[in-house]
Amino acid sequence: MDEKTLSRRRFLIETSSLATGFVTGAGLVGLTACAPKEIIKEVVKEVPKEVIKEVAKEVPKWPWPYVKLDPEVVRKKAHFGYYKDACCYGAFWAIVDALREKIGFPYTQIPTELMAYGEGGLVGMASLCGALNGAAAAITLVTDKDTWKKLNKELANWYTQFPFPSDTSNQYAKDHTFLVDKYKSDKVLVSSVSHSTLCHVSVTNWCKKSGLGSGSDERSERCGRLTGDVAAQAVLLLNQFADKNFKAVTASPATATCVACHTTGKDVKIGQYTRGEEDCLQCHTPHEIKK
Amino acid sequence: MDEKTLSRRRFLIETSSLATGFVTGAGLVGLTACAPKEIIKEVVKEVPKEVIKEVAKEVPKWPWPYVKLDPEVVRKKAHFGYYKDACCYGAFWAIVDALREKIGFPYTQIPTELMAYGEGGLVGMASLCGALNGAAAAITLVTDKDTWKKLNKELANWYTQFPFPSDTSNQYAKDHTFLVDKYKSDKVLVSSVSHSTLCHVSVTNWCKKSGLGSGSDERSERCGRLTGDVAAQAVLLLNQFADKNFKAVTASPATATCVACHTTGKDVKIGQYTRGEEDCLQCHTPHEIKK
Repeated sequence: MDEKTLSRRRFLIETSSLATGFVTGAGLVGLTACAPKEIIKEVVKEVPKEVIKEVAKEVPKWPWPYVKLDPEVVRKKAHFGYYKDACCYGAFWAIVDALREKIGFPYTQIPTELMAYGEGGLVGMASLCGALNGAAAAITLVTDKDTWKKLNKELANWYTQFPFPSDTSNQYAKDHTFLVDKYKSDKVLVSSVSHSTLCHVSVTNWCKKSGLGSGSDERSERCGRLTGDVAAQAVLLLNQFADKNFKAVTASPATATCVACHTTGKDVKIGQYTRGEEDCLQCHTPHEIKK
Repeated sequence: MDEKTLSRRRFLIETSSLATGFVTGAGLVGLTACAPKEIIKEVVKEVPKEVIKEVAKEVPKWPWPYVKLDPEVVRKKAHFGYYKDACCYGAFWAIVDALREKIGFPYTQIPTELMAYGEGGLVGMASLCGALNGAAAAITLVTDKDTWKKLNKELANWYTQFPFPSDTSNQYAKDHTFLVDKYKSDKVLVSSVSHSTLCHVSVTNWCKKSGLGSGSDERSERCGRLTGDVAAQAVLLLNQFADKNFKAVTASPATATCVACHTTGKDVKIGQYTRGEEDCLQCHTPHEIKK
């Protein structure tokens, strides 16, 4: 066999090293027993190597390809996805599945259930908003490091300042042609700004504004619409990136007077204990500056 | 084709029915063993494309298979991974790559870079701790919904109450045979409890206890050791699950007196605005109960 042809030995090693439990050796022996040599060579040369290389051995090169998506399709899809497996899954699935429909492989290789844990800010702990977590994962799957850093930062800053649910999501929910009967809702829900990336703060602020409990159906539906809004915004940013016209437009909500001293740094004497870029006054009260 | 020869259609059905998606020469070998050359050529010519298509159509069945891992190997690997691409990637990559080494496919199909965005609590926002985010994603990849809910809740509650870095991570870092020179450190770092899932709180508490700034090399190294500790704990829980002896042992840190009123519910009159299971007193001060 020439250099380009897999040797039988190498073929067996390569195929048997794949922990699929699918044994090839016996079949190959069967082949070698009665087929002419040139047929064996041809089969071995053309098939397994390609298949092994393409399918099993290598992680599909990251970042995965992105083609522009329709943010409105994704907004509806993510709202629907919220009712499939909650916020984090809903946002991640909507974007990845839309790409799966448009591109196919490699999006056919990732189980979107992977991100379901982010629901309710990490299995209901009410930490990081799941919709934001899931959308950020999708952005990171399809962009290089320089890009996902910028896009995710913009998305997070936008999230803390945007009144959820959007008018668009409220309108879609009224049309509700994409929702199954069980989840149809013709209520326009009141909007609120979270001032935080946290599920806990985002939900509480909305509940206070709407006068509805966190365990109400409306609060759940509000989070479904928010999931749509966050996924749509992620797609909007990705489309800007695809068109080479992305620009960060939302400033960090961290209070300027606070971060003058309290920031990431090495000097503990001036209070550089702090890491973070969120709105300080959500949790902290201002104090007099010691001079 | 005669009875003994797989039709192209049946070949595709058979190959696509392999849950692993790995199609080797074997099925083809059965087909080609004694078939005329022209048939073999025809099939061989057509196979790779079809196989890739068939394989690519289906997402490798979730949850992906788990085999018990050595938590100590993963602890070192995640610490090392922290220096590859920060905390969230470090924890996720350490577990997935350890499974990739042991099992191969389908772990060869997922780009672990996907989780890098969680660094520093979502691109440095200091929201949810990235190590916890990444480890939770790995747990969710390999367990069904009932299981990942329990395991991730246990991991999150444990996280808020565990003094990071562990003695083990401190010791490993001293041995530092697995770290590249640049990151070697023989310092035993002081440990602190976060009382929160948040990067912001976790880092600040550690900085206050150590007297070191959040921008110091030691703080970064502390987060590397923490990444190892969180990934190792995730593996410990997964191993317990694999051995069918997992039991949640860490209580939610939410303050009992608070959640008596402030909890998820529909009745806003008694303050059921709140969603969350973290330690309330990290951010809130207790108030007198109105009767």
